[in-house]
Amino acid sequence: MVKALLFDVQGTATDFFSTVCDEARRIGAGRHPDANWPDVVRRWRAAYFAALEAASGRADGWVSVHSVYRDALDAVLDEHGLAGFSVAEREELTLAWQRLRPWPDVVAGLTRLKDRYTLATLSNADVCAVVNISKRAELPWDAVFAAEMAGVFKPDPAIYRMAATYLGLDAGEIMMVASHKYDIRAAGALGFRTAFVARPLEFGVDGEVDVAYSDEFDVNAADFLDLAQQLGC
Amino acid sequence: MVKALLFDVQGTATDFFSTVCDEARRIGAGRHPDANWPDVVRRWRAAYFAALEAASGRADGWVSVHSVYRDALDAVLDEHGLAGFSVAEREELTLAWQRLRPWPDVVAGLTRLKDRYTLATLSNADVCAVVNISKRAELPWDAVFAAEMAGVFKPDPAIYRMAATYLGLDAGEIMMVASHKYDIRAAGALGFRTAFVARPLEFGVDGEVDVAYSDEFDVNAADFLDLAQQLGC
Repeated sequence: MVKALLFDVQGTATDFFSTVCDEARRIGAGRHPDANWPDVVRRWRAAYFAALEAASGRADGWVSVHSVYRDALDAVLDEHGLAGFSVAEREELTLAWQRLRPWPDVVAGLTRLKDRYTLATLSNADVCAVVNISKRAELPWDAVFAAEMAGVFKPDPAIYRMAATYLGLDAGEIMMVASHKYDIRAAGALGFRTAFVARPLEFGVDGEVDVAYSDEFDVNAADFLDLAQQLGC
Repeated sequence: MVKALLFDVQGTATDFFSTVCDEARRIGAGRHPDANWPDVVRRWRAAYFAALEAASGRADGWVSVHSVYRDALDAVLDEHGLAGFSVAEREELTLAWQRLRPWPDVVAGLTRLKDRYTLATLSNADVCAVVNISKRAELPWDAVFAAEMAGVFKPDPAIYRMAATYLGLDAGEIMMVASHKYDIRAAGALGFRTAFVARPLEFGVDGEVDVAYSDEFDVNAADFLDLAQQLGC
């Protein structure tokens, strides 16, 4: 019955935490050897969520996620007392969000799923970010869908409906896959099938993350290989 | 300087003529052994172009290309006196446009180009048609862009600008690749680089098609392998 799978990218398919931590250390560790980079990245991601929520109430046009991360970075560095980053370094660090590494199960899991299902992203990241991440990591999507195409961010219902229209499928023929329950709950409320994937390391070894399986979802999976197995691939 | 290539799909990357002719013969030849299927397909494609042109003047919402082909088919079958096609057969025949076969050079050419360039479609076909064609033929796009995402058809400038925005690139960093000069001329007028690919068999061995190379384009190529070679891949 399910013909297509839609995947969240930042956190579900990719390990932004270690990628961005590594890049922050590479650029900033010489200057700030004692900085708490994991905390910087967690605060940066939180500022991103706050900015997206603020943007969703406005009607004054689209805001690129790159600009959201770039603006949030200044505040986060100030907050941590991390001075001395040049404009070029701040831009370079922000671009780490366009070079996110996939979790180790992702390429193999998607490759197995691709034989039976149409695979597409449904990401709040900018289209170019999803394209850059996917090309670099060789993620075998059949299509890239992103909030930028809908003009609204997840969990706005319009973005899930956009994906269904583009796929030419009914909601019940599509499964939304994410490690964030707000995302799959929003899709599920519109009649999409849902798959929760646990990503216990989304915010690092000390990070707080909800990985509890729940009967409210059609599938609960440990990773993309487990998802493939449960979907018969 | 060029970082991404945008490809037309119907005619440039795929051989719609032979695909749709074969499907029409398969479905209709038993009933109409003497029908001129090549002419039916040429008229069907012409009716599609006329409908797109008519649609581009309207502001009453999007028209799916599937519905354009489906509506045009009735008129073309009537015109040729080809009676007896059931509704299900007409639907099945229309879906041939979502199963178009690539020209024989396309997969190999794209595979070579993909190492150096971001590859995306820019098609007037529906998103789901491009996805279905590409998945079936294993066309290695990095992204699928289509008129449906812009709400207008090529050669409207808005669709080329949309692709540049989604790619996060300037027009001059993108090359539009097509076998139709109106398409690459429209992109070129906006500052895109242009590649003309000759497809002498676009309308079959007796079809009329403009395959003349021209200095107005940055590249003139015999096929996608020739394009890859000229672009250093």
